[in-house]
Amino acid sequence: MITVQVDLQERSYPIYIGRGLLKQNSLLAKHIVGSEVMVVTNETVAPLYLDTLLKSLKDYRCAEIILPDGEQHKTLAVLQQIFDDLLKVPFSRHCTVIALGGGVIGDMAGFAAACYQRGVAYIQVPTTLLAQVDSSVGGKTAVNHPLGKNMIGAFYQPRCVLADTDTLDTLDERQLRAGLAEVIKYGLIRDIDFFTWLEEHASEVLAREPSALIHAIERSCRNKAEIVAADERESGVRAILNLGHTFGHAIETGLGYGAWLHGEAVAAGMAMAADLSQRLGWLSATEVGRVLNLLERAGLPRHSPEAIHKARFLELMAVDKKVIDGCLRLVLLRQLGQAVVTDGFDSDLLEATIDKATV
Amino acid sequence: MITVQVDLQERSYPIYIGRGLLKQNSLLAKHIVGSEVMVVTNETVAPLYLDTLLKSLKDYRCAEIILPDGEQHKTLAVLQQIFDDLLKVPFSRHCTVIALGGGVIGDMAGFAAACYQRGVAYIQVPTTLLAQVDSSVGGKTAVNHPLGKNMIGAFYQPRCVLADTDTLDTLDERQLRAGLAEVIKYGLIRDIDFFTWLEEHASEVLAREPSALIHAIERSCRNKAEIVAADERESGVRAILNLGHTFGHAIETGLGYGAWLHGEAVAAGMAMAADLSQRLGWLSATEVGRVLNLLERAGLPRHSPEAIHKARFLELMAVDKKVIDGCLRLVLLRQLGQAVVTDGFDSDLLEATIDKATV
Repeated sequence: MITVQVDLQERSYPIYIGRGLLKQNSLLAKHIVGSEVMVVTNETVAPLYLDTLLKSLKDYRCAEIILPDGEQHKTLAVLQQIFDDLLKVPFSRHCTVIALGGGVIGDMAGFAAACYQRGVAYIQVPTTLLAQVDSSVGGKTAVNHPLGKNMIGAFYQPRCVLADTDTLDTLDERQLRAGLAEVIKYGLIRDIDFFTWLEEHASEVLAREPSALIHAIERSCRNKAEIVAADERESGVRAILNLGHTFGHAIETGLGYGAWLHGEAVAAGMAMAADLSQRLGWLSATEVGRVLNLLERAGLPRHSPEAIHKARFLELMAVDKKVIDGCLRLVLLRQLGQAVVTDGFDSDLLEATIDKATV
Repeated sequence: MITVQVDLQERSYPIYIGRGLLKQNSLLAKHIVGSEVMVVTNETVAPLYLDTLLKSLKDYRCAEIILPDGEQHKTLAVLQQIFDDLLKVPFSRHCTVIALGGGVIGDMAGFAAACYQRGVAYIQVPTTLLAQVDSSVGGKTAVNHPLGKNMIGAFYQPRCVLADTDTLDTLDERQLRAGLAEVIKYGLIRDIDFFTWLEEHASEVLAREPSALIHAIERSCRNKAEIVAADERESGVRAILNLGHTFGHAIETGLGYGAWLHGEAVAAGMAMAADLSQRLGWLSATEVGRVLNLLERAGLPRHSPEAIHKARFLELMAVDKKVIDGCLRLVLLRQLGQAVVTDGFDSDLLEATIDKATV
């Protein structure tokens, strides 16, 4: 088992990465507050892993809520269902919420824990590659609003993250590839050696070769933990984690949540960020080619879907959380392995990028 | 103008108390983040003070949302309306939400600010006595759930509290009296000299004599600021601020939100807490008499409403935030001016108190 620490003073916590961790009840017990546990999961994950988790929780008074699967259910209405269930028992302020599932479950269960009785403990048990490398780490929780993704949420840290890599065995191919988009992101924003490693080992990761997969998860988590420790509430450097996300969120909101997976939208968004970086003279055609090539090998999209035309795309981008006083800022690549947050681009160049991507 | 500081390191902020503060735009300007301001108010307060506030905000891009008045509207559904309006503009993460109104508006606008884009700045402009002495200070924000009051919320501190005592001129008598319940609370829990002062000056406060009113507000805010500074997230001493609230929330939830004002329910709850404290041998009959007498002079209830029978009352109390592992804790009075949080009472005594109060 590998442990990566997220260093946030009194809110510090470990990320455990390894095989068969779900069965290690002592690992969970160290981080559970109180005697009551609410497991939040979905209809895809529950038949696969809920029983295993509940066996590890046999010393606690447990309840579970099984939500529908998919980004389109990451809403205030579904959040209310979690509150309803917590209050029907009723669970006290000294309880623990466990998120068992992918990024949608983690975001919703975490936000529910942040708000229930003004904050209860929660633990992330991510079961998708995307959640294990990204969304379960760092305390960003949220639900979507019809007008913008992740617009309602909280910064609220879990007590631990338990990434059992055995759960990836049952992950469908499309979900695995979507997770790889966020893995590639770490290479692009701050870890060129990792990017190069991914170019060399993409096929092993896609074949779920355990040591390659665990290496990719660990290295991703170390990158994320360092950034989060430096800037928990995204007042600075943390924003580089959003490479491809402003474009990507526009795609997700524009198509309707759930049409594309989050990782797929981020992949197209990273391709667009690379394109705009090239227009600014920061990346060469060869470097952009390396980005597009790796995305292609991962089976990920490199264009916006046809359904969103250019004017709509610009409108959707205006609702981004990185907008300050009407000015859109984007995460772009100063070079491969070095992201910057900037508003220093001509709107013509941005429009050219969107033109190209939305044809 | 009086300034009371709430001392919370980087989250510290001032409470300004005085006449005509709404018109002092420089006071607000010091605490507004960004150039966009969303004023959240209600249909009772808007005709009275919205224009005055907007005049002080003429240098900002402002929008307002006018909500229906009353505790029954402090819901997730109404919260969603605030998000809808923020996103329709759309307001960025660098905006400021201003709560103009009583406790319901402050709780909802504060919680909306806590969640919008994972947290934006907010300012409390309380216009009721209850909000000026209690709910606007300390960062507790929440909405109600049909099964329990303030069950969904956040600890999230404002940038400042601006208590313009001129706004109390238009407050109706019932609201003034309800606010007085929380004023009396500070005397009971930790400030016997203030309690005695209130016994001597209740009629001046009720007559809205400015110096008496300002003294009552200042002293209440100083008490609250000290408690909040000692225990921001209510892991200890802050719980004494809930004297009468576990009983009171049961009344509010049981009757349906809005039937009784919060302060009225708290008054009945404080009478019940005094009764149980007497049963424990902590208060004499004379001391309980002083409590009941002051509540009576303030025109406040000293019994639970008839509509809630005893079994229902106990059931409603079980959903309290101070329950730990199934064990109900209550704020009781060790003596006048000294509250304790305790589960050290016989359930027979609690039932006797409820019996007496629910007849």
